[in-house]
Amino acid sequence: EILERIETLLCDGPLKGVKAVVTSGPTHEAIDPVRFIANRSSGKQGHAIAAALAALGAEVTLVSGPVTIPDPPGLRVIRVESALQMLGAVRGALPADVVVCAAAVADWSVANRATEKRKKKVGDPPPTIELTPNPDILMTVSKAEAPVRPRLVVGFAAETERLLEHAADKLARKGCDWIVANDVSEATGTFGGDSNTVHIIDGAGTESWPAMGKDEVARNLAERIAKALGKM
Amino acid sequence: EILERIETLLCDGPLKGVKAVVTSGPTHEAIDPVRFIANRSSGKQGHAIAAALAALGAEVTLVSGPVTIPDPPGLRVIRVESALQMLGAVRGALPADVVVCAAAVADWSVANRATEKRKKKVGDPPPTIELTPNPDILMTVSKAEAPVRPRLVVGFAAETERLLEHAADKLARKGCDWIVANDVSEATGTFGGDSNTVHIIDGAGTESWPAMGKDEVARNLAERIAKALGKM
Repeated sequence: EILERIETLLCDGPLKGVKAVVTSGPTHEAIDPVRFIANRSSGKQGHAIAAALAALGAEVTLVSGPVTIPDPPGLRVIRVESALQMLGAVRGALPADVVVCAAAVADWSVANRATEKRKKKVGDPPPTIELTPNPDILMTVSKAEAPVRPRLVVGFAAETERLLEHAADKLARKGCDWIVANDVSEATGTFGGDSNTVHIIDGAGTESWPAMGKDEVARNLAERIAKALGKM
Repeated sequence: EILERIETLLCDGPLKGVKAVVTSGPTHEAIDPVRFIANRSSGKQGHAIAAALAALGAEVTLVSGPVTIPDPPGLRVIRVESALQMLGAVRGALPADVVVCAAAVADWSVANRATEKRKKKVGDPPPTIELTPNPDILMTVSKAEAPVRPRLVVGFAAETERLLEHAADKLARKGCDWIVANDVSEATGTFGGDSNTVHIIDGAGTESWPAMGKDEVARNLAERIAKALGKM
């Protein structure tokens, strides 16, 4: 790992001198000390993007939720659990030239979080979990004032229906530069799987890529980023 | 693995001919196609118990929720996600001589589960998650009619406060024979960690074991089970 890191440091890739922040994985939102709300993101796509940017010479900070896959070598990894912690870690890693928000950040955290394990009591009705909106990391980064606002902000849209419509809406609403849209319906096997079918939506339109490995999606995206920054 | 399985089959341990079912790990309860409620159980203690029973010659079925640790060799593993699926797998594995319910089964599943990903809508109040009680696997097994009712049913109590009180109450309520009580407060590091401090509560009273590795807890428990069944 040390050798790979030295290699990356010495590497004169097209993204040498470019600072990148990538978020990856799910977030966990605590219900009580033992229970939490999670999602099916494995972190494979986000980790692959971080690795691909590092391979082109970028100085990468990977902010990762709880995942079981290994850290890519040659980059800085900050591990977090909740969306709030992820936002804090991303803020701490700015300014950066490019930010890729690939994490499946929970939209909500638990408003009525308990400090002790909730007990099931015979005769009592089941509790309800009240939710409260999480801070929007993609929008926070996209709408930051110069000079904190990165030159390029890329968001992800994971949808189970009306993919392109939801993604275009997200691009407009969040103020990011590109949305990478992928269908995460159970039948696609995208969450947790090794391949992905994505569409890149930007101000100019929609670019649909064929199904390919998540590593290949990552390499193509890293190259597209390098070109957009005038580095390739 | 095949060799280890043959070794187990040929092994003349004290539990030879004894059929055991062990549940392990968390359960995941779906909120929608991408989100779910989970808990911090790693499956380490349950898997270790299954392995320890197999090492004494028992024929073991391990019913495991989603975990990231490897399957112990030499036993049958059935993987499930939800509490309902776990109950079905346990029922299918009966009759058995001994059942150890070490899984951290969710008390509730989601009553208002969505078939498509819940969307965050600007201006809309956040959704609430309505819960509904899950079937009680430990109680179902403990209160089964002869000859399905196993000779020995062992439950676990994972608590963050008033451990022995909650555990004794659970023993009486569930109708199981023993409760293994462990403190899973964050400070103890029990969930996900490698050691455990347990108390065995049965009709005769409480036996407190010193802190030890989860493997050692498992070996001691397997021996206690063998003695209770008159096999050691």
